[in-house]
Amino acid sequence: MFKRITIIGLGLIGGSLGLAIKHKRLARKVIGVSRRRTTILRALSIGAVDSVTLDLKKGVEDSDLIILTVPVLKIMDLAGHIAPALKKGAIVIDAGSTKNEIVKNIESVLSGSVDFVGTHPLAGSELSGVIYARRDLFKGAYCILTKTRRTDKKALGKVKRFWRALGMKVEVMSPEKHDKCVSRLSHLPHAVSVALSNASRKEDLRLAAGGFKDTTRIAAGSPELWKDIFITNKKNIAADIRILKKELSKIEAALKKGSSSELLRLFKKAKVLRDSL
Amino acid sequence: MFKRITIIGLGLIGGSLGLAIKHKRLARKVIGVSRRRTTILRALSIGAVDSVTLDLKKGVEDSDLIILTVPVLKIMDLAGHIAPALKKGAIVIDAGSTKNEIVKNIESVLSGSVDFVGTHPLAGSELSGVIYARRDLFKGAYCILTKTRRTDKKALGKVKRFWRALGMKVEVMSPEKHDKCVSRLSHLPHAVSVALSNASRKEDLRLAAGGFKDTTRIAAGSPELWKDIFITNKKNIAADIRILKKELSKIEAALKKGSSSELLRLFKKAKVLRDSL
Repeated sequence: MFKRITIIGLGLIGGSLGLAIKHKRLARKVIGVSRRRTTILRALSIGAVDSVTLDLKKGVEDSDLIILTVPVLKIMDLAGHIAPALKKGAIVIDAGSTKNEIVKNIESVLSGSVDFVGTHPLAGSELSGVIYARRDLFKGAYCILTKTRRTDKKALGKVKRFWRALGMKVEVMSPEKHDKCVSRLSHLPHAVSVALSNASRKEDLRLAAGGFKDTTRIAAGSPELWKDIFITNKKNIAADIRILKKELSKIEAALKKGSSSELLRLFKKAKVLRDSL
Repeated sequence: MFKRITIIGLGLIGGSLGLAIKHKRLARKVIGVSRRRTTILRALSIGAVDSVTLDLKKGVEDSDLIILTVPVLKIMDLAGHIAPALKKGAIVIDAGSTKNEIVKNIESVLSGSVDFVGTHPLAGSELSGVIYARRDLFKGAYCILTKTRRTDKKALGKVKRFWRALGMKVEVMSPEKHDKCVSRLSHLPHAVSVALSNASRKEDLRLAAGGFKDTTRIAAGSPELWKDIFITNKKNIAADIRILKKELSKIEAALKKGSSSELLRLFKKAKVLRDSL
C-alpha cells in the first residue's frame, strides 16, 4: 500500500501501529522516530519498526505516509518542523484525540504539495508506552477521519483504506463534530473518573470494590496526555460537565424527595442505554 | 461450622454463597428458599443447595444460620415474617448493601433468643441471577460486619469465622460508618455511571470506546436493586453527589481559565489515588 511509512512517536499507539502495519504488510519499510533512545531500541527489538532514527528530517524525507502519534500539543509543533523535509505527494496523518485545533493548525502549516488527513483511532487504554504495544489494538474499533474544505479526496480514500486494512471501522466527519462527539463519549468520562478519584477518602480505599475500580480506571491515564486533550477541547468538555452535573442533580432531587419511582425511571433509562452498547 | 444453613433469596449472591458453603463444607445441610420455582430448580441443579422450599417458615425452622440475600427493602419485610419460626440460638445475617435502616429494623423485630449480625460482602457484579453464581465470588474481597450495642459478641465471632472461611477479609464497624463508606465508594460511582449513561447521545453510542464502557458498566445493574439501596442511604448519597459536583466544578473552572497547570494537578492527584488501589 505504501513504500515507506514513518511513525513519529513510539508509545502505545505508535508501537502498536508499527506491529500492525508490519503484520499486514502495508509498507515495504517502517521507520520509527522518537526522542528517546530507550524507546527506539525497544520498538526495534519488538519488531514494531524496520529502522529507527532520532533525526526528524531524515526520518520523514523519503516517506509516502507520515503518522504523528505524539501528544496533541506536540503534533502541532511537529508538523511545522517536518514540513520542509516532506517529499511531494506525501500524506501526513495524526492519531490525536482532538481534531479541531490540530487540523486547523496543520492545514495552515503544510504546503500544497503534501496532503493531510486528521485521524483518530478510538483505541488505547490507560496504559502508555511501547512496552504495551499490541498488533491487534485497532482491530474492530472505530477510526474517525476528518474532512474539511481542504481535504484531498484521493488522500482521504487512501487513508480510509489504510485504517480499514488494520481492521478498523472508518467514519468521516468534520473536526468540529468529532470534538463534540468524543467530548461526551471519552473526555467527559475521563473528567468524571478524575473527579470520583479525587472525591475518595484515601483511608477507605482498601474497601473499594469492582464498581469504584471500573469507574476510576481511566483516571490512571497519563496526566500529561490528558492535559493536552482537555486544553484543546475545553469548550466542549466544560459544556458537557455542566450537562453531567444536571443529570447528577436529577438523582439528587429524587433522593431528597425519597422518590422511588423517579430513581427507578433514571436507573432504567441508563440501563437501556448501556445495554444497547 | 453449622448444622443447617438456610439461604433466603437465590440470586447471584445467594447462589454463590450456596456453592461456596458447600465447597468449604461449612454446613451439613444447605436449604434454599425462593419465591420462584425456576430459581429454586436452577439452584438445586447447579448444586448450590441440598434442598429447596417455597415455604419461608419451613425453610428456617431448624436452621442455625439464616442468610437473607434479597433486595434491601425485602430484607426488612422478611425478618418480620421469619421471626416467629426461628429456633432459639439461631443466628440471622443479611447481605444487604446498606446497613443502618436494615440493622435498626431487624434488631427491633427479632426476639432476644435469636442473634442478628448485619453483614455486607463487597462482592458482586452488574449481573444478577443464580445463573451467574460462582463459588469463588467472595474470595479475597472484603466483608463488612456491623456492630451495635445489641450485637452479641459470640454471634459476631461466629459470623466473622463464617465469612473468613469463604476467603473474605472481615472488617467490623457501626452501621452508620458502613453506610457513609459505601456511599462514597460504591453508591456514588453508581450515580455517576447512571448520569454519564443518561447524558450520552444514543446516535453516537456506536463510537463509545473503552473509557465510556468502563465508566458506565455498573449502570447496567438491576434498577430495582439499586433503587432500594439509594432509598435506604439517601442522605449520604445526596451529600456525596454534592461533593462530586464540586470536584467536577474544579475541572470546569480550570478549563474556563485554560489552566494547564491546574488540570495537570487534578489529573496527577487522581492518578496517585487510583494507582494506590
